[in-house]
Amino acid sequence: MKERGSLDLVQSSLARGQASLSEHDSARILEEFGVPVGRHALASDPESASAVAAGLGFPVALKGSGAGLAHKSDIGAVVLGLRSTAEVEAAAERLLSIEGCDALLVQEMVAGDREFVCGMVRDHQFGPCVMFGVGGTLTEALGDAVFGVAPLSDADAAGMVQGIRSRKLLGPFRGQAAVDTAALVRILVALGEIAMSYPEVAQIDVNPLKIRGDGAPVAVDALVVLGQDRPGEPTPALGDGPGGVAARLSAGSGTGLAPLFEPASVAVIGASSVAGKPGNEVIRNIQANGYPGRVYPVNPRGGELLGLTVYESLAALPETPDLAIIIVPAEHCPGVLQECADKGIKHAVILAGGFAEVDETGAGVQAQLVRIARENGIQVVGPNTGGHISTPNSFTSAFFPLGRVRPGRVSYVAQTGNFCTHTMRYILTAEHFGVARVVGLGNAIDVDESEMLEYLASDDATESVVMYLESFKRPRRFLELAREVTRIKPVVLLKSGSSEAGRHAAVAHTAALAAEDRVVDGMLRQAGVVRIWDYTHLILAGKALSMTRLPRGNRISMLAPSGAMLVVLSDLASRLGLELPEVEESTLRRLQELSPPYIRMRNPVDIWAATLARGVEAGYREGMRAMLDDPNIDAVVPILLLTEETGMPSTDFIVELAQEYPDKPILVAFTGDKRRIDEYREDLETRGVSTFPEIEQPLEVLAILSKCRRAMERPL
Amino acid sequence: MKERGSLDLVQSSLARGQASLSEHDSARILEEFGVPVGRHALASDPESASAVAAGLGFPVALKGSGAGLAHKSDIGAVVLGLRSTAEVEAAAERLLSIEGCDALLVQEMVAGDREFVCGMVRDHQFGPCVMFGVGGTLTEALGDAVFGVAPLSDADAAGMVQGIRSRKLLGPFRGQAAVDTAALVRILVALGEIAMSYPEVAQIDVNPLKIRGDGAPVAVDALVVLGQDRPGEPTPALGDGPGGVAARLSAGSGTGLAPLFEPASVAVIGASSVAGKPGNEVIRNIQANGYPGRVYPVNPRGGELLGLTVYESLAALPETPDLAIIIVPAEHCPGVLQECADKGIKHAVILAGGFAEVDETGAGVQAQLVRIARENGIQVVGPNTGGHISTPNSFTSAFFPLGRVRPGRVSYVAQTGNFCTHTMRYILTAEHFGVARVVGLGNAIDVDESEMLEYLASDDATESVVMYLESFKRPRRFLELAREVTRIKPVVLLKSGSSEAGRHAAVAHTAALAAEDRVVDGMLRQAGVVRIWDYTHLILAGKALSMTRLPRGNRISMLAPSGAMLVVLSDLASRLGLELPEVEESTLRRLQELSPPYIRMRNPVDIWAATLARGVEAGYREGMRAMLDDPNIDAVVPILLLTEETGMPSTDFIVELAQEYPDKPILVAFTGDKRRIDEYREDLETRGVSTFPEIEQPLEVLAILSKCRRAMERPL
Repeated sequence: MKERGSLDLVQSSLARGQASLSEHDSARILEEFGVPVGRHALASDPESASAVAAGLGFPVALKGSGAGLAHKSDIGAVVLGLRSTAEVEAAAERLLSIEGCDALLVQEMVAGDREFVCGMVRDHQFGPCVMFGVGGTLTEALGDAVFGVAPLSDADAAGMVQGIRSRKLLGPFRGQAAVDTAALVRILVALGEIAMSYPEVAQIDVNPLKIRGDGAPVAVDALVVLGQDRPGEPTPALGDGPGGVAARLSAGSGTGLAPLFEPASVAVIGASSVAGKPGNEVIRNIQANGYPGRVYPVNPRGGELLGLTVYESLAALPETPDLAIIIVPAEHCPGVLQECADKGIKHAVILAGGFAEVDETGAGVQAQLVRIARENGIQVVGPNTGGHISTPNSFTSAFFPLGRVRPGRVSYVAQTGNFCTHTMRYILTAEHFGVARVVGLGNAIDVDESEMLEYLASDDATESVVMYLESFKRPRRFLELAREVTRIKPVVLLKSGSSEAGRHAAVAHTAALAAEDRVVDGMLRQAGVVRIWDYTHLILAGKALSMTRLPRGNRISMLAPSGAMLVVLSDLASRLGLELPEVEESTLRRLQELSPPYIRMRNPVDIWAATLARGVEAGYREGMRAMLDDPNIDAVVPILLLTEETGMPSTDFIVELAQEYPDKPILVAFTGDKRRIDEYREDLETRGVSTFPEIEQPLEVLAILSKCRRAMERPL
Repeated sequence: MKERGSLDLVQSSLARGQASLSEHDSARILEEFGVPVGRHALASDPESASAVAAGLGFPVALKGSGAGLAHKSDIGAVVLGLRSTAEVEAAAERLLSIEGCDALLVQEMVAGDREFVCGMVRDHQFGPCVMFGVGGTLTEALGDAVFGVAPLSDADAAGMVQGIRSRKLLGPFRGQAAVDTAALVRILVALGEIAMSYPEVAQIDVNPLKIRGDGAPVAVDALVVLGQDRPGEPTPALGDGPGGVAARLSAGSGTGLAPLFEPASVAVIGASSVAGKPGNEVIRNIQANGYPGRVYPVNPRGGELLGLTVYESLAALPETPDLAIIIVPAEHCPGVLQECADKGIKHAVILAGGFAEVDETGAGVQAQLVRIARENGIQVVGPNTGGHISTPNSFTSAFFPLGRVRPGRVSYVAQTGNFCTHTMRYILTAEHFGVARVVGLGNAIDVDESEMLEYLASDDATESVVMYLESFKRPRRFLELAREVTRIKPVVLLKSGSSEAGRHAAVAHTAALAAEDRVVDGMLRQAGVVRIWDYTHLILAGKALSMTRLPRGNRISMLAPSGAMLVVLSDLASRLGLELPEVEESTLRRLQELSPPYIRMRNPVDIWAATLARGVEAGYREGMRAMLDDPNIDAVVPILLLTEETGMPSTDFIVELAQEYPDKPILVAFTGDKRRIDEYREDLETRGVSTFPEIEQPLEVLAILSKCRRAMERPL
């Protein structure tokens, strides 16, 4: 924290009951933190004003100053572009005659056409946040602004600067130099420092932040609003407090989640002998996955089910199991959780719904669960969840009939109950990739997205993380963690509730309040988390992350038997931020050798004529190989032509190319005969090459992968 | 055309060699056409300037005026916000001392925070175009501008006004009234009128067009650039000129394309007895479709093929066929086309590639084709095309083995050779809808997109039109036609080449130059053509247009077994411009009766609990029925849960609902077991209900359909 050199100024303003600092004092506090401010001075009468103006150099702006003077522009208390002492004195005379005007602020007229805006707000979720955007009177209407959570690193601030839609404004502009972005970065970082140093400052608005002709940014108008500090993590998650997640983590003892995913023994409370009942299916799932640990079904009726002895109570178990799966109705859950505590169990998954997501009664029951969990130090997943999956340990608490889950390298964290149900079923039946850990957070009364992310970060079985979240339980903690994790593992996130309509549905679905989307967006950029927007991409990105390495960059090549497809896909690539670079002369020669001269070969590659001349397989194989050899290309997308008449290629050549060039992802799509396509896809995917039903999808997924790479390699 | 009241002013300025009108004269010509301009007057000395200022009322702006005075702001020749005679005189004194300043322009300071920009340019493709956008110094950097082709109807102009991204600026703003959009519309229409009346005016720039506090727009700065007229359709398409399309159409004789799609007899020049050769496959395709007309294979070798007598020459045919399919190499095409002419044939499809799309030699051969076609009045499709299809007449000229093509109600026009090849094969094997007419325009030396659209407009077999274009052969003609056609039939268009990358590929692919995308976008809005961006949507939109009616509006309901999916899809709906309205109380009661109380039913509908309580089929059926009965809902999207364990619903109930509510489209997507989904999809689609592999796609397609409806019902 910087020294609070302007503390007197802030405190005396507060003492006077001011809601904000005067324009002059606002400038002082900004200058103290190194924010360049336009030259200015106070004057008390026309003569001294004109002397000040002559000192600053014409032209100048003259503003009335005084505690009671608001909306200066509207009442004519601002005159711009004065260029002589006579003009200044005439204007000063009139300004001083305005009621409430007791001094004059003489300001340099900053020349330059570009106006930005920056500032600081204290967000209810993320605490102090710095803002940067396109300024002037249209600021709010344009809405071209980005946020970052303070304190900002230089890299955070640089990411914000490049994050505005109108980043074209940063380059040379109407004869003026490119913006000094390093200076912009220092300003944004400084705003964050002010926020951290002065909890008394509630908001800062610098509008406009003008850009001089030489590219230097300078604060022209600044407003520093005073008010109560709003803490960084103001809404404590249920997992916080003594015995909660936050306390555990700060104790440095790790997440302690291992027994959840790697239990040596498990009790299933609410086990049922009736097939189709969740209390039965959960045990079938455990058995189908070949779980080698000890399973203890618990049901007051006792007896036997699925070859296992049923215990009449937890107390009757021969040992204290690592994990309890609680699958009884909501109202019975607190009692069962207490029995778990009494037995000494430290980890539990509560599957039932009917808690805070439903009504006040449910919220009350949920509060009981929180109390019991904390008092007894139990780590709880759920309630209101479809359970979790841990393929490295052949284990699951899912109650939806899934059978054996394919092991893989990607892990999923989802703030929804359906992930381990029909979405996982879809993945298992429609796709060919597997998963490592999967957890449905449900109402997340204890284990939350941050704790899960921390666990997965150090989980050797997890190579990448795909998340679905509707809100953040501990927003700042998530940012802190994610910004570290994303440097070692890709983290892809679908954060829903970005629209008014979406928020509406979010309230219906969970007890959570969605965050202001623009702040979330900024936080995720800082965190290096790659944001996605489609549910389908949760699955397709997971597949690609499972089957390929990340590309080195965003430079792709495409091959298709249709110029039209290539034109449309080139447009899409451009929208997605992917490049279709020129390739080496030698690559062009190799391509041209494949093709009759009436197609001029380039990137993207119209492969049609080459397939006629060389056959489909040779055309694609040699075309792809030329591109894979080219140093300008990071990934290759063939749109394979598959019909009997044009000749069916083998799948071998693509599998071989994928093995030969492991650092350059090959993502495959198709055109032609759907029946042949389906067979070919199945074959390729089971051999580890990712394929996509729509021709746009390989590009959409490559855009995600290349952002993961960029996040991983971003400056500290 | 309006009277040219300012002709003297324009002509004398031109005579003086001025590149543009003076600011004062520019204001005069705008005022003549009813564009409100800020009050202003010229003055020659400080005293008269201050008198004028007093007359206008303070504050005023003072500007130097003079033929040699450029970049007024930069040289200090603009002073703003002068509020007293003393200030005006002091400023005037200084301005007059600037070299080249021989007069003073005194202007009212228009109060108001909103700045727009409007103007007129003459586009190389579309001729005079009016522009409207967000103004001020950032205009170009923001790029928030829309175009319309002049002359503009009021509805065109209104569409432009609502077309800017920052349309929020049109509402009440910082205490100022909503913009008087009717006045904005009059201004844009007036700019178009100036363009039509004064070919001497090359460009108009009104920047800023300020909005007064009461919402009235007023031109503050205006620049009228003089220069040569650039004609509206400056690059004549090859089909233009005597004997070309334009001449035929202007003769009012209709498109004359009927024999192309409904030939009673056809010659196939270049017929081959070798299976797999295009000259063989085209005849197989004709036969597979059950063509009832007379087919004459032509090949110098004579003989017989596929049961048909082969003629050694066109001259030897027993009659003059309605249509010639020419399937010989490029260099032989001119000779064959001349033989067609000699035989009296009036319609031809030229399939070969190797023309202007390849090199200069090809372009020369293509020019010969144009000459022969024109001299002999032959209507030509192609060259460089995969042919065409006409299912109502069981006919095709496609040479790619397609077999029988399913008849349907949607017609495709594609500026690419591949549409009747592997894309059509994909449609035939992956989808279950059929087509009416399909044509690959290829190089379009004669029959072009406008002529096709005109034919399809009056074609009873065509209910909707889906197009893929990379450029427009006759841009203004297309606009004229499309704006009529879209009122009676939906027209959906994928216009590629929108990005730099796309244009690059477009040049490689066709001989056409892509249009400036923003102008194209404005033209399509005026035309009522619904623009799409994905190749996949060419197919999915065609399917939906085939299988459902258009929804009445954009108000949808969704039902899914997952709140998470609903939240994500609600976000998507919002991005797509679809509404998820509140529904009637009675509808909510019906929904709630289906579900346990722990889910609060609303739109969108979380149907999970209802399926547990009632079964999957009853849950969805009654939920969908409640929404279909609701007057606030225009279309329904069920995300059907399909797994053995949750119970497989019949397809009957959806087919029945679709029949019972024909005016409310039902677009179906799925979650659960992919194998069950594939079976169910096949079953539903063959029974006429459209289904989609990804859960996002029904919304994407409904957005297209509801735009089609809006285009159809847009004001004249």
